[in-house]
Amino acid sequence: MGPGPSNVAPSVLQSLAMPVLGHLDPVFVSMMDEIKAMLREVFRTRNEMTFPVSGTGSAGMEFCFVNLIEPGDEVVIGVNGVFGTRMVEVAQRCGANVVKVEAPWGEIIPKDSVAQALRGRKPKLVAIVHAETSTGALTPVEEISKMARESGALMLIDTVTSLGGCPVDLDAWGIDAVYSGTQKCLSCPPGLAPVSLGPRAMEAATRRKSKVQSWYLDVNLLSSYWGQERVYHHTAPISMNYALHEALRVVLEEGLEARWRRHREQHERLRAGLEALRLSIVSQAGHQLWQLNAVGVPAGVDEAAVRKKLLVEHGIEVGAGLGPLKGKIWRLGLMGETSRPEHVDRFLKAFGQVLAEAGYRP
Amino acid sequence: MGPGPSNVAPSVLQSLAMPVLGHLDPVFVSMMDEIKAMLREVFRTRNEMTFPVSGTGSAGMEFCFVNLIEPGDEVVIGVNGVFGTRMVEVAQRCGANVVKVEAPWGEIIPKDSVAQALRGRKPKLVAIVHAETSTGALTPVEEISKMARESGALMLIDTVTSLGGCPVDLDAWGIDAVYSGTQKCLSCPPGLAPVSLGPRAMEAATRRKSKVQSWYLDVNLLSSYWGQERVYHHTAPISMNYALHEALRVVLEEGLEARWRRHREQHERLRAGLEALRLSIVSQAGHQLWQLNAVGVPAGVDEAAVRKKLLVEHGIEVGAGLGPLKGKIWRLGLMGETSRPEHVDRFLKAFGQVLAEAGYRP
Repeated sequence: MGPGPSNVAPSVLQSLAMPVLGHLDPVFVSMMDEIKAMLREVFRTRNEMTFPVSGTGSAGMEFCFVNLIEPGDEVVIGVNGVFGTRMVEVAQRCGANVVKVEAPWGEIIPKDSVAQALRGRKPKLVAIVHAETSTGALTPVEEISKMARESGALMLIDTVTSLGGCPVDLDAWGIDAVYSGTQKCLSCPPGLAPVSLGPRAMEAATRRKSKVQSWYLDVNLLSSYWGQERVYHHTAPISMNYALHEALRVVLEEGLEARWRRHREQHERLRAGLEALRLSIVSQAGHQLWQLNAVGVPAGVDEAAVRKKLLVEHGIEVGAGLGPLKGKIWRLGLMGETSRPEHVDRFLKAFGQVLAEAGYRP
Repeated sequence: MGPGPSNVAPSVLQSLAMPVLGHLDPVFVSMMDEIKAMLREVFRTRNEMTFPVSGTGSAGMEFCFVNLIEPGDEVVIGVNGVFGTRMVEVAQRCGANVVKVEAPWGEIIPKDSVAQALRGRKPKLVAIVHAETSTGALTPVEEISKMARESGALMLIDTVTSLGGCPVDLDAWGIDAVYSGTQKCLSCPPGLAPVSLGPRAMEAATRRKSKVQSWYLDVNLLSSYWGQERVYHHTAPISMNYALHEALRVVLEEGLEARWRRHREQHERLRAGLEALRLSIVSQAGHQLWQLNAVGVPAGVDEAAVRKKLLVEHGIEVGAGLGPLKGKIWRLGLMGETSRPEHVDRFLKAFGQVLAEAGYRP
């Protein structure tokens, strides 16, 4: 119940144990096509260039920046947590001139702040973390995407924690580029980064003046392996692709809307239980993630000791706060398979007990 | 029986299906330590910075170049196949000035050619592909490593196909940097890239003037996660690390010398069987890999049709030739679990049958 990896369904775990096919085997090649098709459904996009990068979510972030940015490009990035901060770092290593739009950790990036940053500028790219895993805030991106497009910029979002847990609607929102991870609300083990580039992003990537600085992540080469030509680029992580194939099948079998509803309901169940303990979720009201809950640490309670006791005595992992939120919150993940009423109830019981032992009286 | 992925032992496949731990869980953290210790044994090194990069072998190649090279650095690279060619491409994307030492595909990089390239130069790095998977040639690297050191350069080798299948002896050979893959002679599924950086390489990586262009592969950040501090960097591919842990355990249980002997014996068994068919291994005599055999296509035989028939009718995958060797060789992998007498015999029987059906008469 930490910030991911989430629990993995037995059928997904078992799929990992299947014999390993060659990366150019016709059976594996048709699995690749099915993975692409299912990812398009989950992202709600028609983008041809939708596939899993052979690395974790952070490799997906780097994939987007190295392909879209050339030295000297101006980039507007929302920074309200660890992953916006990381985007700045990655963009700068691509030679970008970064304009930061900052908000306090735990709050969203207000669209007005983005509008202000765009005034008088013609950036190449606007990048926003949709769901900030480090704080539990969900920034609405649809209007920001519209503003980015009006200013002539590409729109990039990080959906590592949102995909599969709450609405993500790439084409309706006009998103040009996106990356995600497998180990959050898709409930697949970590190791792959689903990405999607729309036509405008592909144009930017293919019409570059300079070569993409990463050979491993160059979409101009990857598109030949994941496209119709099947030209050897690198050896795809076969077993991880089995797992993603099965995890996506499970997601689509449940249905996206039903899955989002389940995530919302467990969030509400948790909130009610926390209120009974006189505790609360501290990220910005009205913009709290269903799948990652920032629970405020009450005064006088040792945050790390509670976490350790939950893990050692109750077999429950919860995450610590990061950066300015270190020691101030616990991060409770209700992602994918973990987002079930029986898990919420088991957590609340154990949490209440550990807090009582720590001397906390609601 | 292609150029990898090789067959995977049942215990390794089953390890993939274990429940997914958190990437900072104490149990996973001790597995990380055990993986590092076992990798050191397999590489025969005492290098502290020995760990698996969270990507495939090509990410391991990129890891070495992005950390060791800064724009303008001179690099000497041996080019005698696909992977030397790829090294040049990756190094140039890091801003290196590349001096190529070329040899015909199928032959080794002669040490005299390296000596000639080093004359009057002070390169930052010399890079050689130890085992060229695209041609089946094994370049002796010990003397080249000595020459590199004498010229003040770091020595980097690609052991993607050699590690676990034939002698690799990092510290005895004075190698500063190395990368490998999991899916060849370690017989683990693809998805991780074991790497090792020695003290001189770490000094080059930590005393850089410019930041490493890849955030995902920056050893200055990765060393905090894989070192004692355990600072969160990215979410490690947990299941793949289970598999590598078990695969390394299997390798060390067999013993490196015994494993190398098994690879040599199957190569000899194959060679004898090929001779009975009046066929031969066409890479340079005296320098042929035991684990990757470049079998010459006899005149008048359709290379691709034979490969397809082996796969569809006999369930045996073999690899095609690449570049100048396209259509001229089959690449037969005898790597890790695949390198067993019963597999060689089954292949020879099927191969003889398919060749006869194709009209070939020995």
